[in-house]
This record gives sequence, structure tokens and C-alpha cells, in this order.
Amino acid sequence: MTESGIPGASGGALPNAVRIVEVGPRDGLQNERAVVPLAAKLSLIESLVAAGLGTVEAGSFVSPRWVPQMADTDRVVTHFRSSDAVEMPVLVPNLRGLELAKAAGARTVAVFAAATVLFSRANLNASRAESLARFAEVTAAARASGMRVRGYVSCAVHCPYEGWVEPGKAAELAASLADMGCYEVSMCDTTGAASPGRALAMARAAIAAVPIDRIAVHFHDTFGQALVNTLACLELGISVVDSSVSGLGGCPYSPGAAGNLATEDLVYMLDGLGIATGIDLDALVKAGAEISDVLGRKPISRAGLALATRLSASSEVKDHLSN
Amino acid sequence: MTESGIPGASGGALPNAVRIVEVGPRDGLQNERAVVPLAAKLSLIESLVAAGLGTVEAGSFVSPRWVPQMADTDRVVTHFRSSDAVEMPVLVPNLRGLELAKAAGARTVAVFAAATVLFSRANLNASRAESLARFAEVTAAARASGMRVRGYVSCAVHCPYEGWVEPGKAAELAASLADMGCYEVSMCDTTGAASPGRALAMARAAIAAVPIDRIAVHFHDTFGQALVNTLACLELGISVVDSSVSGLGGCPYSPGAAGNLATEDLVYMLDGLGIATGIDLDALVKAGAEISDVLGRKPISRAGLALATRLSASSEVKDHLSN
Repeated sequence: MTESGIPGASGGALPNAVRIVEVGPRDGLQNERAVVPLAAKLSLIESLVAAGLGTVEAGSFVSPRWVPQMADTDRVVTHFRSSDAVEMPVLVPNLRGLELAKAAGARTVAVFAAATVLFSRANLNASRAESLARFAEVTAAARASGMRVRGYVSCAVHCPYEGWVEPGKAAELAASLADMGCYEVSMCDTTGAASPGRALAMARAAIAAVPIDRIAVHFHDTFGQALVNTLACLELGISVVDSSVSGLGGCPYSPGAAGNLATEDLVYMLDGLGIATGIDLDALVKAGAEISDVLGRKPISRAGLALATRLSASSEVKDHLSN
Repeated sequence: MTESGIPGASGGALPNAVRIVEVGPRDGLQNERAVVPLAAKLSLIESLVAAGLGTVEAGSFVSPRWVPQMADTDRVVTHFRSSDAVEMPVLVPNLRGLELAKAAGARTVAVFAAATVLFSRANLNASRAESLARFAEVTAAARASGMRVRGYVSCAVHCPYEGWVEPGKAAELAASLADMGCYEVSMCDTTGAASPGRALAMARAAIAAVPIDRIAVHFHDTFGQALVNTLACLELGISVVDSSVSGLGGCPYSPGAAGNLATEDLVYMLDGLGIATGIDLDALVKAGAEISDVLGRKPISRAGLALATRLSASSEVKDHLSN
């Protein structure tokens, strides 16, 4: 059923359709303590594609010494390289990663840059300028090989080292990535600290600097704000959203902590609003329940957990004295 | 810090201040499998009041055979009856409950009616008309005794037996409760099925039937939509929100399932938006962590869990290759 009448959308700002970029197999699983076996990863990605996801971030060509969870990305890419229907970006931090991605047959890569100096240094061991130069090189090489490049701006709202980030600073970096040739730039609230006002300020600056159809948003649910921030950005007309099945991506050092925006919660909302996604929610819920089983826990997604429970049991609801 | 610029708020619709009605000690704890000891309940309520909550629903005068979790409500009310600063509604299902509330020294009671026939029958063992007549009687008796009466409309959006509820039907019931003399009517999404479009349709109908300053909203987070629904209603100008510390109120038959909107997540958002609540978030987080300890689990609230972890440890954050 279709709903309508979101305030702020009276000018028609809410998009009719949203493209979801599923990042669970990469941004989600890379943060898991357990290394998920290759077969389970392939099964997860197959289930996500079957559920209707058209873009699935499949892995990362980073050093397996640092991120053993992604050590089999070459095999994941090889497995899916003949499937044309789905876009499967893989993260590459540098030229060496790009070479590995190309060798495996990847057609799309992702690069990421941080909006703040201290995060750049901590995560990329490079200054902001050095990392930009490196990405320009990677992006140029990828495009010369006929690959598409997706960009990420980390710490677009808040940095764990520097605090709140000036929206113009994140937008400027987004423009640089777009200028290098990234077909899309995803603005990431890495720490999950944003609430809707800050999310909007960031998004407004981004769409002032880069055409709106090349901007995606990427929220983490650390403080329970991921979905409300996403809706605020949709009301601006942004129509590409990153999310993670089952809410994968919680910090491994804080069990139970929320991770990325859960794809199930997002699709539940979009379905309710009558915004098309092309995704079968029940199939998505099953994919989330399966990978949660592999990880030995319940789905972090609220909607995923509620719907999985409903799908798996016809348990009687006891409702006395509830409101 | 203040944020601003929520779409839809350009007409000044977002309220400057929100009054939060904390329902954890009642709507939360009544759904817990464990019966929380009296001393822990008193401590919880004291902590909530110390954190700045001005309205705390303290318990329920229902049959202890049905709801043993609330069997000590008389002692809770007696304990706090000399504290004038806080409003502490207690739920009363009938005249007998009202007498008990009065004997304990309660100054405010709450009644609830369901918007649908089948839910009324299942929960109140009465038709809609019968339950309305009963509440009219209870409300009149309470007011004759100088008590204030708060009303709840259960199933204001969705009914577990009848499905989606016509917004006009819920609004009509709200008007009846207001006409009986309820100073405020809280519109409850009992099953948590609403997403923002349906939440708005319900809220629009309610504020067309009852003055907006007498309408509260009450969302459950079953599908992860509680906060986004709340923001949508705030954008209409509604300024009273029910929530539950730590997200208490999950279904006892589905461990890990989300309960009420978590007060911590709500306050985190409102703080970020610069909307005044009078609540100290850190103190609230401690209250949530304490009751979660009593219940032997982690806070269900995302913000509560993240901030409790932060408050209790200075653990180093490992951020490599995150976005």
C-alpha cells in the first residue's frame, strides 16, 4: 500500500524510487570478529541479488594481514564476474588493490577518502592531499581500464578524532572525487553521530557541490539515528542509499552495538511510503536471517528480527493490556 | 549545539520544546518476563526524575494474576506521593483500579481504549461502546475526586487482528476521550507497524479532532520506525512524545525484539536538533544501564548502549578502513 504526505515533500521532493547499495558483504562483514567462510559469503550475495538488490558491494582488496575477513575477495569477484545484472563494487585502497581487482575481473571499484586530516592519517596513513593524489591516480588507472569508480567520503559529518566536520569541507572532497571521475559519491557518517539537522546540513552542502543524482548517503546506526537521517536526506531529493542487510557492521569490540543502517528497516519504510526499490522484503529478511545464523546471533535489524520471527513461526501473540 | 533546517519545518512547525512522557516503569516493565523488585523500580523512577523527566508513568492497577509485574504499584505510588514536582500517571482499567489508585494517593491516572473492535474484545473483554462507557465512568469518577486523567488510544494505526486502522476512526476515539475530560490523549502504534506516511495520516486526523497541545504520540520500534515516525509527527507541531528508557517493552515471547521508542534515542535526536527537553542525557543513559543490569541484559536503546559503553570505558577505537 502507498502512503504519502510526508512534510517537506509537498514540493514533490521525496523520490519515487530509491536505489539501495547493499554494503553488508563488505562494510558489514569486514567488521565482524569471525571470518565468514567463502561459501557463506557467496550464498549471502546470491540471496541479496535474488531479493532484488542491483548493487552489492562484494569485498575489499586490502591487506589480509589487516582485514582477514576480506582475504577471499578475489574468489568472490571471480565467482560473480559473469553476472551482468548486478553491479558489484569492490573497495581498493591503492594501485596494488586495483591490480588485484582487475585480475579478478572486477568491473567496478570503490575508493574512499576521509574529510578530516586525523582520520586520513589514522586510516590511510596519508595526509588529505596525499590520499587525494593517490585516489586520483587509482581512479584514472581504473577508468583507463574501463572500470567504473564509486567514491566514499568518510567522516562527512563527524570524525572520531576531530569532532564535528564542517559540511563544506566534506562537500569539497565529494566534488574532488566526482571531478576525478567517480560516477557516484557516498557521504558517510562514519561514527553514526549525526542526527537529522546535521545530516541535512551535510547533504545540502553535498548536493550544492555535486549533481544530486551522483550523491548517495551512508549512515551508521550507532545512536539509533540512521533511518531518520536517511528520510531527512530523501526529503531533499537524494535517491541512493547505502545500507547493510541485517544491520551488519557493528563494532566487533562492542557486542550488540549497532552497525550500518539495516537494509530491512530501510525497505520497510520505503515500502510503507510507496517508494519503489525493486526489493522483495521477505526474501531480504531470509537473507539477513541466514547470515545472522552463520554469525551465531539474531539479526540486528529491527524489521529483520520481527519479520524473521513472523516468517519462521506462527506463534500466538499475547496482547493483553498493551498499548 | 543547535541544528536546524529540517524540511517541512520552514513554517516553524518543529516545536521548540518537547515534553517526554517516560513509560518505561509501566509499559516497559509490564512486558518483561522477570518481575523487577520494588527497590529496583523505585531506584529507576528516582533516577529518571533526577535525569529531568517530568512525567513518569509509574505502574498499573490491574489484576496481579494477569500482570504480576505491576503487583506493587500501590507501594510505588505511596513512595512518591509527596513529590509534587513530577506527574506520575498510573494505569487503571476500571473503577476498582481507580479506587486502588486513589487509596494509594495517585493524583493522575491513565485509561486506555482501543480503536478496533477485536482488540477491545481481546484486551478489555468489552465492545468498543462498552469500553467507552466504562472509561467515561472511570474518568468522571476520577475527576470528581480531583484527579487528572490521561487517555490512550491503542491500535491508532494498526491492529494485530484487523490490520490497518482508518485514521478517522482513531481520531474519533481520541475526541471521545478528550470530551470525557482526558487532559491529553496519546495515540499509540501498538504493533509498531507504522511507517512515516501512516504515522502522519494518523496524527493529522488526530489533530483535526483534538487540539494539538492535547495530543501525544507513542510509537513502538518493532520494525525500527519509532524514531522516524516521531520526527514526522513533530514536524506537524506535536510536542508530547511517549518513550521508554533503554527501549524497555519488548515482547517477552521474542527475546531481543524491540520495544517502545527508546528515550535515549529520542533525547539524542532532540538534543541534536536543539529542541529543549530538560533532560540530562548522560544521567538518563545511566538510569537505562542500571535497569538493564537488573534485567540482566544490554540496553535495547542504540544511543543508550553506545553512550553507556563510552561512559563506562575509555576503550580505544579501532577505525582502520572504516567508512
